[in-house]
Amino acid sequence: MTPADRNLVWHHRRIGRADYRRRNGHPGAVLWFTGLSGSGKSTLANAVEEALFAQGVYTYLLDGDNVRHGLNRDLGFGAGDRVENIRRIGEVARLFVDAGLVVLTAFISPFRADRDRVRALLGPGEFAEIHVACDLATCEARDPKGLYRKARAGEIPEFTGLTSPYEPPLAPELVVDTATTPLDQCVRQVLGLWERIRDS
Amino acid sequence: MTPADRNLVWHHRRIGRADYRRRNGHPGAVLWFTGLSGSGKSTLANAVEEALFAQGVYTYLLDGDNVRHGLNRDLGFGAGDRVENIRRIGEVARLFVDAGLVVLTAFISPFRADRDRVRALLGPGEFAEIHVACDLATCEARDPKGLYRKARAGEIPEFTGLTSPYEPPLAPELVVDTATTPLDQCVRQVLGLWERIRDS
Repeated sequence: MTPADRNLVWHHRRIGRADYRRRNGHPGAVLWFTGLSGSGKSTLANAVEEALFAQGVYTYLLDGDNVRHGLNRDLGFGAGDRVENIRRIGEVARLFVDAGLVVLTAFISPFRADRDRVRALLGPGEFAEIHVACDLATCEARDPKGLYRKARAGEIPEFTGLTSPYEPPLAPELVVDTATTPLDQCVRQVLGLWERIRDS
Repeated sequence: MTPADRNLVWHHRRIGRADYRRRNGHPGAVLWFTGLSGSGKSTLANAVEEALFAQGVYTYLLDGDNVRHGLNRDLGFGAGDRVENIRRIGEVARLFVDAGLVVLTAFISPFRADRDRVRALLGPGEFAEIHVACDLATCEARDPKGLYRKARAGEIPEFTGLTSPYEPPLAPELVVDTATTPLDQCVRQVLGLWERIRDS
């Protein structure tokens, strides 16, 4: 064994969650926003991230903008690919939690089983499901991306809420109703949830 | 349009790289360690992370421990899956860079084309390839996981360095030779590279 070899087994400890938490001043967690297209998931998640960032919380937001054309670019919208889409997002969220960050995810994620699998990847208190509950008529009236119009015209098969089911969470950590509640109040509700997670 | 609807289009800006960078005090970047099994990638990357963490740098380490049994648990070791393995790791590294972190990756990543694709995902100065260059005989003598022994016994097909090629980087940002250089000196070389990235 040469001196260099001895050095390669030089003892070191792996930096881990406890280290990141101590440094950041808060635990990592997933704030998982789920709801229909047009329910306001992205708008709300962005506004919450802005508020958390201003408070000095270490955050990151995963949504279609940074996932669909990157990590999940090889996935389509068939049943199997939709499951894999959420699985990968869950696994990436877990890595960010491991890195000590509060990760906000904004995906329709219509199926209960898919969301429950993500919850199972994380520890107690690390996964908070936020149901962005807005009635279909309001979502369709907003139609910010014109997707409902296309779906009604038959251009999008298996569109959640119209031709594919949305399974609302049975026991979400929070429900916000963006049809009846102003955004700033929705933000405060999510921040209240975060404070309970942080202090628990 | 109800008051709630008006609130949903409430203007907000998206928190992004510039915000994270200002808050963290440094840019995000990938330190990509590549080399043979037993070359010391994980040992070196762990030691570098420990040093960066002590300096207050916001870091995370991706390696087989947190990727293979999570995000990439569906992938095997065939040619196509090895390409997809590195592609996903690159995409996840990109997300961490987007979040403002310095992400260290420790994977054999034997093929130049795969590493070059990851480089292409990132901006100038955001991807630093570190060739952990240790001669095969030394790696095989170390054999920390007993893999060379198994491969020699024919139990592992397409084992990098024996029955599958390792393509060294042609223009890596850094080469460290762990066969001849003590670990603490290798760490200092990587920290020097990081300082150049940070200050550029």
